[in-house]
Amino acid sequence: MHITPEVRKAAREIKTPFLIMDMDYVRNNYFDIVSHVRNVQVFYAVKANSHPRIIETLRDLGSNFDVASRGEIEKLLALGISPERMSFGNTIKKVEDIAYAYSVGIDYYAVDSEMEVEKIAAHAPGSKVYGRIATSGGDCDWPLSRKFGTDVGHVISIMEYADQLGLDAYGVSFHVGSQNYNVNSWDDAIRDASEVFKTLRAKNINLRMLNLGGGMPVKHVREIKSVKSYGDIINRALDKYMSFVPDLELFIEPGRSMVGNSAILVSQVILRSKKGSEDWVYIDAGVFHGLTETIEGFRYEVLTEGKVDDTKISFHLAGPTCDSVDTIYHEIDLPKNIGYGDILYFINAGAYTTEYATNFNGIDAPRVLFVEDFIDAEMPIERDFME
Amino acid sequence: MHITPEVRKAAREIKTPFLIMDMDYVRNNYFDIVSHVRNVQVFYAVKANSHPRIIETLRDLGSNFDVASRGEIEKLLALGISPERMSFGNTIKKVEDIAYAYSVGIDYYAVDSEMEVEKIAAHAPGSKVYGRIATSGGDCDWPLSRKFGTDVGHVISIMEYADQLGLDAYGVSFHVGSQNYNVNSWDDAIRDASEVFKTLRAKNINLRMLNLGGGMPVKHVREIKSVKSYGDIINRALDKYMSFVPDLELFIEPGRSMVGNSAILVSQVILRSKKGSEDWVYIDAGVFHGLTETIEGFRYEVLTEGKVDDTKISFHLAGPTCDSVDTIYHEIDLPKNIGYGDILYFINAGAYTTEYATNFNGIDAPRVLFVEDFIDAEMPIERDFME
Repeated sequence: MHITPEVRKAAREIKTPFLIMDMDYVRNNYFDIVSHVRNVQVFYAVKANSHPRIIETLRDLGSNFDVASRGEIEKLLALGISPERMSFGNTIKKVEDIAYAYSVGIDYYAVDSEMEVEKIAAHAPGSKVYGRIATSGGDCDWPLSRKFGTDVGHVISIMEYADQLGLDAYGVSFHVGSQNYNVNSWDDAIRDASEVFKTLRAKNINLRMLNLGGGMPVKHVREIKSVKSYGDIINRALDKYMSFVPDLELFIEPGRSMVGNSAILVSQVILRSKKGSEDWVYIDAGVFHGLTETIEGFRYEVLTEGKVDDTKISFHLAGPTCDSVDTIYHEIDLPKNIGYGDILYFINAGAYTTEYATNFNGIDAPRVLFVEDFIDAEMPIERDFME
Repeated sequence: MHITPEVRKAAREIKTPFLIMDMDYVRNNYFDIVSHVRNVQVFYAVKANSHPRIIETLRDLGSNFDVASRGEIEKLLALGISPERMSFGNTIKKVEDIAYAYSVGIDYYAVDSEMEVEKIAAHAPGSKVYGRIATSGGDCDWPLSRKFGTDVGHVISIMEYADQLGLDAYGVSFHVGSQNYNVNSWDDAIRDASEVFKTLRAKNINLRMLNLGGGMPVKHVREIKSVKSYGDIINRALDKYMSFVPDLELFIEPGRSMVGNSAILVSQVILRSKKGSEDWVYIDAGVFHGLTETIEGFRYEVLTEGKVDDTKISFHLAGPTCDSVDTIYHEIDLPKNIGYGDILYFINAGAYTTEYATNFNGIDAPRVLFVEDFIDAEMPIERDFME
């Protein structure tokens, strides 16, 4: 997302920190995915950003939803999403939450272990289950395949077990890892998935669905390929490996790639200090207030606005809480004369920011604002500047 | 805190995860500190656990409070704490929050930089300020002296600057780091502080307060010394280094040492699986729901209840969310036959647990319960077991 005049105006006049979103990006991302991945059904990964405006926008576009908990199911039901449009994609579910999901009418459940199959057979009998394959993780910022998924042979035996317990052995899912830069990861994963389909067909268990997971990257500091490039690779891999399955149903679960580029996190410098030879800048967002992913090394593109100075020097950048873990980056180039009240824009911060926010230190999570609300509108002047 | 019959009963019958607290530990901790550190005034670090019952308990014992934000100040005012009993101990404050604190009558402010002094001089004129020294951090689990505090020479010049700007140059603070096992850290820090007092007295700036910060450890997997041992070292160091200051006021800011041992986090196994050679156990608390400190390597004592088996094997232990970061320990010994519904008790989890909790994945933060509410009371049966 670009810094538009509306964003600049909000940054000047509204109390920071806040996330400012533009739903046009979400709409474009949705169309980009359904245009380039053939016959795909989108299940938006609600955990990336569960703001009602995003859910409503995607609801109206016809999206489905990947949910992680009873809390998310309740939220979606309240927003008028029918249960047929939800998939319970968390492989770690409480039995009472499975029973709840079944009671409201959810039919899709992810599994990667025998126990999860038993839980679903007992509390959501006859439901459609799909087994999650672990991928190599390769070139991604956030691998997800140690805690989640299992090997091809294990997925096969889990799906056979599901069939024995009276469940509908429905499909296979994988996740190549969040922010995966290697387009070939999808080819590898689809080949692995086809093995599961093939082996089980020989045993007369006919899976019908392939779930591509998430993982298409969002632009931060590295260059990324287009959704079309990923779509082309996926379409080719489907032709190559999956054409033996008639009427294959295809799911995809974008989270970051649906909302990541739809927002900017706007924060304000609230202190600058010198400690020995170190220059520190402290802002009003931080690891516990929107920038959680930075503790795992995630790099945002950071732009500044305020005192004009072309010279940049290296700073330590930290959040506002009394906790040393709340240090965002130990090395970031910022304008040499940056000072109180200057603005930092964290670009493409629409995913996994407000969802991870806490109230630690008695400090509220960043608010969420929408660009469309500010066009041609008077803005409340909320900011205080240092004299 | 010990696992009492009431705790066991709650674990069996009430929906997990929850934090169960016993206010008697908090009362004992308060008396332990005021009995062993001579003439000390306690300022409880609210950020460790801001539950109203803890604040009320400490209010009634006569404690003061160390606050980190406007949010904490508002919470305490609503609980009937007068502003004279609060110290604004965060060294990173927004100017509007300083103005707010001043307007309600708070008089104590921490500083470790020139800019912070300027902000306080402008928005809380004439207030009492204390400068924070950085300590070596030494043998502690959670060092706090890179982001916070500065060297002795810098603290001296900051306090001179405060005096020039019309503030009341009031004292010195330090923090030896959270969970500091080395009693001598306090001796070193008090010696450093005495340098600041001495140098400034020679310039006719008479500081009157020494703030010992927090840092006394709570028992987890390492043996710890008694509060009396720490008190003895502190009292001796005060005699040795600070006796030239008449009527020295002494503050201490316990957070973890006030509430850490007053609670147990109770969680339930919701999945067990085998992935290749790895054994995984998943529970309903996790890094985003109470056990945040484990991502920095913090080790809790973990006890289990459920299937009886004396043989233990090594597991990977993870939380309930769709995020690989939500992995608590990659190596923990648990009963070989542990399974669904078995209980894990995280001992002495009263500090920095619920405060860091998020609603990530639509999963609520652990509830907070109190043992005293369950003695002789009927308990609601909320738990569901797997058939």
